[in-house]
Amino acid sequence: MRPLSEKTIALLTDFGLSDNFVGVMKGVILAVNPRVHLVDISHAVNPQDIVEGALLLKSSYAYFPKGSIFLVVIDPGVGSRRKPAIIKTHNYVFVGPDNGVLSIAAQEDRIQEVRCIENEKYFMRPVSNTFHGRDIFAPTAAYLSKGVKHSQFGKVLKSMKKINIQKPTITKHRVGGKVIYIDRFGNLITNISKGILERFTQYRKCTAQIENVRIPSMVDSYQAVKYGKPLAIVGSFGFLEISVNGGSAEKYFKADKNTRVDIIHG
Amino acid sequence: MRPLSEKTIALLTDFGLSDNFVGVMKGVILAVNPRVHLVDISHAVNPQDIVEGALLLKSSYAYFPKGSIFLVVIDPGVGSRRKPAIIKTHNYVFVGPDNGVLSIAAQEDRIQEVRCIENEKYFMRPVSNTFHGRDIFAPTAAYLSKGVKHSQFGKVLKSMKKINIQKPTITKHRVGGKVIYIDRFGNLITNISKGILERFTQYRKCTAQIENVRIPSMVDSYQAVKYGKPLAIVGSFGFLEISVNGGSAEKYFKADKNTRVDIIHG
Amino acid sequence: MRPLSEKTIALLTDFGLSDNFVGVMKGVILAVNPRVHLVDISHAVNPQDIVEGALLLKSSYAYFPKGSIFLVVIDPGVGSRRKPAIIKTHNYVFVGPDNGVLSIAAQEDRIQEVRCIENEKYFMRPVSNTFHGRDIFAPTAAYLSKGVKHSQFGKVLKSMKKINIQKPTITKHRVGGKVIYIDRFGNLITNISKGILERFTQYRKCTAQIENVRIPSMVDSYQAVKYGKPLAIVGSFGFLEISVNGGSAEKYFKADKNTRVDIIHG
Repeated sequence: MRPLSEKTIALLTDFGLSDNFVGVMKGVILAVNPRVHLVDISHAVNPQDIVEGALLLKSSYAYFPKGSIFLVVIDPGVGSRRKPAIIKTHNYVFVGPDNGVLSIAAQEDRIQEVRCIENEKYFMRPVSNTFHGRDIFAPTAAYLSKGVKHSQFGKVLKSMKKINIQKPTITKHRVGGKVIYIDRFGNLITNISKGILERFTQYRKCTAQIENVRIPSMVDSYQAVKYGKPLAIVGSFGFLEISVNGGSAEKYFKADKNTRVDIIHG
Repeated sequence: MRPLSEKTIALLTDFGLSDNFVGVMKGVILAVNPRVHLVDISHAVNPQDIVEGALLLKSSYAYFPKGSIFLVVIDPGVGSRRKPAIIKTHNYVFVGPDNGVLSIAAQEDRIQEVRCIENEKYFMRPVSNTFHGRDIFAPTAAYLSKGVKHSQFGKVLKSMKKINIQKPTITKHRVGGKVIYIDRFGNLITNISKGILERFTQYRKCTAQIENVRIPSMVDSYQAVKYGKPLAIVGSFGFLEISVNGGSAEKYFKADKNTRVDIIHG
Repeated sequence: MRPLSEKTIALLTDFGLSDNFVGVMKGVILAVNPRVHLVDISHAVNPQDIVEGALLLKSSYAYFPKGSIFLVVIDPGVGSRRKPAIIKTHNYVFVGPDNGVLSIAAQEDRIQEVRCIENEKYFMRPVSNTFHGRDIFAPTAAYLSKGVKHSQFGKVLKSMKKINIQKPTITKHRVGGKVIYIDRFGNLITNISKGILERFTQYRKCTAQIENVRIPSMVDSYQAVKYGKPLAIVGSFGFLEISVNGGSAEKYFKADKNTRVDIIHG
């Protein structure tokens, strides 16, 4: 009896859960390797939104077991000449289109090698031009989970497409950031990282400003302000978030992605 | 080779499936114990609705394998002084905040012991103040599934927070209840249990009344009335439900949670 | 130690993911067989829409490992006299109500045997009249996955309920089809199969027409037309689809199910 593979394949797509796309990819994987853990990160990435996918991947990957394979399909260029890629990093393996969606997480975990996926031996045939998640990326992740060597899939790529999250502007008395993601609870996640805040050595004395409202304190928990009141807090993924205790900051401030958030010193 | 753990961890949260919260909790669990079954009960509990979460848990837990661990995170008090808890019952283990969300199911299955989760050895560090699902509850469930003893996590709690579903009022000729949950099909689940109905020994001769409409019979199946017509039936979780054959009682009666439902004798 | 079952049970229902129906079915399965892979195809089938369920099953099943069990619960007749059925086909096993939802996939994979599920030994007791997914279909799938023989569940059925997708009308110069499914991206999947198109031997010279708009070419990838422009393409499940490069054909054409799509020769 073969030992149970303890490999995890974590899936992140913009496929939604209404259609059968995700289920079919899982079927393809299990047909190759029935001894694998399949975990969904999210399938609700805004359709074709590479930046949102890259952000979700960056804030998720490090919580998974070392050696996990991330199967990421946000792929507006499916069927065009964008390359399918495998990125090996210090602790993980990322599989998806070379359109930048993998780049933030992969760079953070230190890239060891980028390869093109081109060996048709590992593809579902015929390969469609509209669903490489099923025909290329899912079987690649599955064969990787079975131990097929990276070098079997294709040649090394010397460069890869990178995207970056727009950095906040920093002046002596002010950090000028913006909302980059809004979660289910209406928390407004900004591009202002804990690291940037800590450069303001007394950052707990700063105030946050959003939509011309000053939020008077940088607090440690939602309950530091009264029920229904807004607050600024370093959230669980290491970025400054604007929240409302017991409510939705999205509704409170009628905010959306790109709403400006400033941190003001003193 | 170690034997496969056959343990199931069942997850119930208000996190939704759009963000990466649930996926990250699963990553944390698999990093501790890669040999566990992860099953979603629901992640669509109305945000911070402890009562709805408690109801869903009550109507779900008994269908899972004995020994299953329920990881329940509906936690409006995250970061405050509400305690994280492990409740051992006759057949199961419940992990979540001590805010009442575990209490209905745990009491029904007979509580053997309630413990506080306080041993930081089993936490993700640093512990955030906004995502104890990831930092405290998920790793606790994972270590429990690996066989770590309950006594390792913290001290016994002598009391726990309890919530109760409002009971219907019962008079000689009438049971006065209300809608407590509405499912995807628009079925209106009331707080009138089969047990209460059976106290009216001839309950099949009762009529249900909702929004001033009398539904003439307590039926055995949806097809007992014509297509598009309403009916009252004891549903699959043991409560009286108002349904429409082939349609939605929610739309038919423009009902919502708290809509009054009466059972009238004779 | 028993070997790990490598069996997959794939679930397809109209239960949605907000309620606990799907989670409870999985609990029931794991209580019978803790060594099984559970994979969701979709739970967002339009409530009680047997045709949509049949289509999703048809376009999914063949990607799963041989021997997989499909647990399909779209069951508007629950509690009536429609029969619960097991269908054994050349490569797979289908479990669900005998209302046609299994028929398109099962016929395509060549039916070997249809049996009624009637042995109460394998049911959850008491059997409700409203949730056979939990009480009959889930435990049947679970016991099948453990190796219980088909003949144990009930007698052979000589006929089964069949449904068919309306075929397009074909004349010398025109194929008259319609939209039968719309996916998350707004792609309009028609009932015009690749096989029908290939009877027009020079089908790449055909044009598609929808809502009086002629789409000038049958293309190989979304990028064959400019960003924001419509196209006709044979999609990943083998049917003609109307899409918009980088957008939604559903919105572009204000289309819905049944919108007419014609293929015109020359």
